[in-house]
Formats: sequence, C-alpha cells, structure tokens
Amino acid sequence: MTAPLPQGAVIGILGGGQLGRMLSVAASRLGYVTHIYEPGAAPAAQVAQACTTAGYDDTAALDAFARSVDVITYEFENVPAAALDLLEQARPIRPGVRALAVSQDRLDEKTFLEGLGLRCAPFRAVDDLASLRAALDVIGMPGILKTRRLGYDGKGQVRIDDAADAEAAWAAMEGQDAILEGFVDFAREVSVIAARGLDGQVVCYDPGENVHRGGILRTTTVPATLSTAQRTDAALLAGRILNALDYVGVLGVELFVTSDGLIVNEIAPRVHNSGHWTQAGCAVDQFEQHIRAVAGLPLGDGGRYADVVMENLIGDDMNRLPDLLAAPATQVHLYGKAEVRPGRKMGHVNRIRRG
Amino acid sequence: MTAPLPQGAVIGILGGGQLGRMLSVAASRLGYVTHIYEPGAAPAAQVAQACTTAGYDDTAALDAFARSVDVITYEFENVPAAALDLLEQARPIRPGVRALAVSQDRLDEKTFLEGLGLRCAPFRAVDDLASLRAALDVIGMPGILKTRRLGYDGKGQVRIDDAADAEAAWAAMEGQDAILEGFVDFAREVSVIAARGLDGQVVCYDPGENVHRGGILRTTTVPATLSTAQRTDAALLAGRILNALDYVGVLGVELFVTSDGLIVNEIAPRVHNSGHWTQAGCAVDQFEQHIRAVAGLPLGDGGRYADVVMENLIGDDMNRLPDLLAAPATQVHLYGKAEVRPGRKMGHVNRIRRG
Repeated sequence: MTAPLPQGAVIGILGGGQLGRMLSVAASRLGYVTHIYEPGAAPAAQVAQACTTAGYDDTAALDAFARSVDVITYEFENVPAAALDLLEQARPIRPGVRALAVSQDRLDEKTFLEGLGLRCAPFRAVDDLASLRAALDVIGMPGILKTRRLGYDGKGQVRIDDAADAEAAWAAMEGQDAILEGFVDFAREVSVIAARGLDGQVVCYDPGENVHRGGILRTTTVPATLSTAQRTDAALLAGRILNALDYVGVLGVELFVTSDGLIVNEIAPRVHNSGHWTQAGCAVDQFEQHIRAVAGLPLGDGGRYADVVMENLIGDDMNRLPDLLAAPATQVHLYGKAEVRPGRKMGHVNRIRRG
Repeated sequence: MTAPLPQGAVIGILGGGQLGRMLSVAASRLGYVTHIYEPGAAPAAQVAQACTTAGYDDTAALDAFARSVDVITYEFENVPAAALDLLEQARPIRPGVRALAVSQDRLDEKTFLEGLGLRCAPFRAVDDLASLRAALDVIGMPGILKTRRLGYDGKGQVRIDDAADAEAAWAAMEGQDAILEGFVDFAREVSVIAARGLDGQVVCYDPGENVHRGGILRTTTVPATLSTAQRTDAALLAGRILNALDYVGVLGVELFVTSDGLIVNEIAPRVHNSGHWTQAGCAVDQFEQHIRAVAGLPLGDGGRYADVVMENLIGDDMNRLPDLLAAPATQVHLYGKAEVRPGRKMGHVNRIRRG
C-alpha cells in the first residue's frame, strides 16, 4: 500500500490549459500545491505555485520538474512518449503510461476495448491505398478515415461517401498510418466520467448527455435520457476499462446510445469537458476526484444532488458574458485565456436546476 | 458608471490566509488574476499569480503592490489605517475605507448601527475605572469589557460578574479605550451574508445558524431556524447597513435571535466564515460574489439549492481527515497551512443535504 500524499505535497501537472487550471484549484482544496509544466501560455499558472515553461523535448527541464514534485499527472493525452519515459524514472505518473499509450493510438484503443468485450464502431487498420479500399469493402460507406495518432479538432479526419474519394482521402493522411471507422446510427451521445483510486476503488458519476456542433462539445446535460439498464451498463463498462488499465485517476468514456445498446466512441485518460457539470452538481467534482486518486486519498462522493446543464463558451460566446453573469442559477467558469479566437474554449457555464 | 474590470485584470488582496485563498480561486473563475499582500506565511499565494511578502508599514512595498493591481480588497478588517491611506491614493479599495474604519472600532460600530435604527446589546464607552463603574451601574451584570479596537480570538475581553471584578477587568485593558457590553439573552445566533454591487444592487444569502465553542465558530447550518418574518428582517437590516456604508463587496452580519427580535452582534466587512456553506449550496458562492462586486460585475444568483451544514476543522480536527474524506455528501476544503496548532482553523467541510 502507498500512503496518501501528505498535506503540502507537490503535484506536477503536464499541461497548463483550463483542465490543468481546474485541477490545480482542486488540489489546493485538498491542501496540496501544484507545479505546471507547459511549453506555451499557461492559464493554469495563475492558480499554481510554480510553472515551468519548456518543451517536452527539454530533458533538463523535464528532469528538474520531476524532481520538484511528488507525483505527476496530466491534463491531455498527447504527452510525447519520450518525455513520459524520462519523467517516470523520477516520479510516479498517474494515470499510468499504459493508459496514455492506449489512448494515443486509435487502433490500439479500439483493439483494447474490443478485447474487453466492449463494442466499438466497425474499424480496420489502413496502411496504404489498397488496405483503404479493402476496408471500405468490409465496412461500407459512409466511413471516416482518421490518422491513428491523435489529431486536434477534427484534423487528420476525412469523411468518405464514395469509393471514388478513397485516393484523395488517403493522400490527406500524408503517409501516416490510419484507421477507417464506420458510422454508427445512434440516438444520442452520452459520456461517463469515472474514477479509480490507488486502492482500486471505482466510482462513477451519473452519465451526461452531450451535444456537439462543428466537432466541439456544446452542452452536457444531467440527467441524460437513459434507461436504468443503460445507466448500469455505462457504469459497468467504465469500471471494466479502469480495472483493465490498472488506472489511477479520472477517465472520460464517450458512448453512443443505439437501439442495440451502448457503443464506445472513445476514451480520454483525464478529466473531461463533459464532466464539468460535476462542479455544480456533486459534493466532489471530477477535478478533485482526479486529485484524490492521484494523491492516494479515498475517492469522494460523486453522487449528484442537482440537475445541471453545462454549456461551453466558445470564441464569440464571450460576448454573451454580461447576460450569463446576471442569469439565475448560473455558475460561470472562465479560463483566463488572453485572446478570444474562433473555436477556442474560453469558459463554460453550469446552469443548475434542483435535483 | 465604472466599467467592469476586463478579463485578465489584477485584483490585489490584503491578507494571505484562507479567505484570501478562496477569494483568489473565485477571481480565477471570473478570468482575473490576483496579487496577495501578506507580511507572514501566505497559503493564498499557492493559488495566486503573485505575492508580496512585506509589512503594512513598508511604504515602498505597499506602493509597488498598489501600482501592480487594478483594484484592492482585503480578507481581514485590521488593516492599519496608514496603509489604507497610502494604498487608496493609487487604487480603489473595495469595500471602502469607511466600512473598515467603522468595523475596526467596537464603539464606532455600535454607534453606527444604532444610528441606523438597528438594535445592539446595551453598551457604554469606558475610558477609565470610574466610567467602567458607571457603565456597570447602567448596564448591570454580567457584562463584558472589551477593547474598542479589535482583538483576536477573545483577546482583550474580560467578563465581569461582580462589581468587585471591575478594577482587575480595567487593568486587563492595559490602558486602551474600552467598551462595556451587556449580555443578550438569545435563543440562537444566525448570520446573514449579504453583498452590494458597485451599482448599488443588494443581494442576501439565506441566513445560517451558528454554533460557537470556545469563542470559535464550529458549525453553520442552513436553513436556520427562523420565521419568515425574521428572515425578511435579517435581509432588510443587512441591506440597510450596506447602503449606509455605500458598501461594495460581501459583508457578514452576526445576529442574536431573541424573543424581542433580531439584535446585531457584530459586522465583518469581508467574506465570513459563516458563509462558507455557500460553496456547496449556491451557484455563486460568497467568495465569487465578493469578487464580482469588487470587479464591478453584476452580482450573481445566491439562491440556495441545497441544505448544508458547514463545520470548521480546528487544530486536531485534522486527525479526522481520513473519515471526512470518505464521508458521503461531504465537501472538504483545506487551507494549506503548514502547521497544525490548537485553535487554528485548518479547513472546513460542507455536508450537503438535498434542498
């Protein structure tokens, strides 16, 4: 057994965006201090004790960072593997490197999930034009061709509606290994935010129902429209993923709800935008739950005591701020980003309805 | 009209304890950064962008601090007047200096409150032994002799049960001007946390019912045991105080509930320990409400959507942490103080019941 981190211990956070920022605040509630590592601008540093501004290839900075903290976690899944290897020699990384590796590669992720007996959209590995044509024959159209490694905001993704599009789609991958995924006919998308403690304890938040627009999450609503059986299924499958990865921390699982049951869209080995509603609806929110796990504390009560609609504030949504600040039962969370840009997540609001 | 502070503006906070810490976190939620000024250890600095460690007599440090921020607020009412005068020349101080002056002197405070038509415990100014004896004749016994200027934790306070104690009680004042207060026969103590915006808007949180032990607040419970009329009276009197002081920010008003109505015990021109429950029960908590006012934003919705019991963690209460962290519906807030000391506020918990 590992003892919980003592009061005053330092939690290192890779990534200085809004998730790192809210993790840092949660760490402070538990008596911990944080050290952010971020190559670029770091709004998280505004509420952290320390911030290292350096690249993930700066081994001296990585080493000094690791030695200055007691445990390391991260706010995003694209941390380069070489940096992780170096950091892991000095301090524990939670969630573990395996969870990151699996989620960094779409093919590995889906293979892992199917290996657990979970259902995903149909998929095939695509290494060249010939294997793309073969995959289209099996999976049918429309399909979506994606690079295996993660891209941001729909980059590295091409929809294929016609076999004649195959050549252009493959060219768009620019030689990177890819995966062809079939479309799923779903009624709605939900996500489960679940956590696993250092002692193996698993807890799940109530699933939230997500609405995306232009590839970006717009709203998450709790409670989601789900049957009791679907709710149970969602919790069970999240628990299966957490246990299989020997996971420590919070994990987001996006699910398609279909007439045939739940299909896993993707997993994120970190706190997740669709879990922001927990700040207004639960005694212990997802950020604190993550810190509790990473610090070896018992997980907290994530029971929901209010109905909440979370809405992201994206780009020019910031112009609505005066109205949102004055709106009833509305919690505003801004991310401290210097510049408003189209498509950029600037903040979110949680609208509370009594539970 | 003064425009609201823009995103990224800097709020200066005098005092780096737990109140400053939670104010700093609230400021971050609204897109502001904070700069703490604190002569001693500053747990607030762990979640602030900057911290000046200097005394309130360090005019160079005060001046540099003031020039580095856009507006100044404070977490405690004992800021020396000379420091305030200096700071106010450079930047607005909210709440204003008048609120601080009134609350720094018990005689001024009670005189101010009675001038508003509010009821206080009977009191008389005491400048020497003769005026103490005269005051005891009018007010009766038991009475409590206090220095006019604020003391901490019951220091500078002596209870007088017998006229023979008068000489020793006066000696304990060590020559400082004092005030004799009569005891109030009260059923319970409640407090109202209220806020006034830069535009004069006033909002009130639901009153909380307080239990003290050894002169330290132990618990605050919402809803308090109050009639509808008492609830209205409490809100109205808080509003009267806020308006009379042309106040900007959050104010705590401690009230005795008696068979004859509400009697004002004392006011605190700042966020207040008895308002910590708002973190779990309201969309906008007292810390954010204060920052909104100070920043010139519209006040937020302080409506209560859950029942909450706030309990302070004092000194060795920290030994109960493992149980508290695992307790259902319990939110733990720790203050990041390095050392546990008897009587020291180390954190608090909010236990949530559905509203």
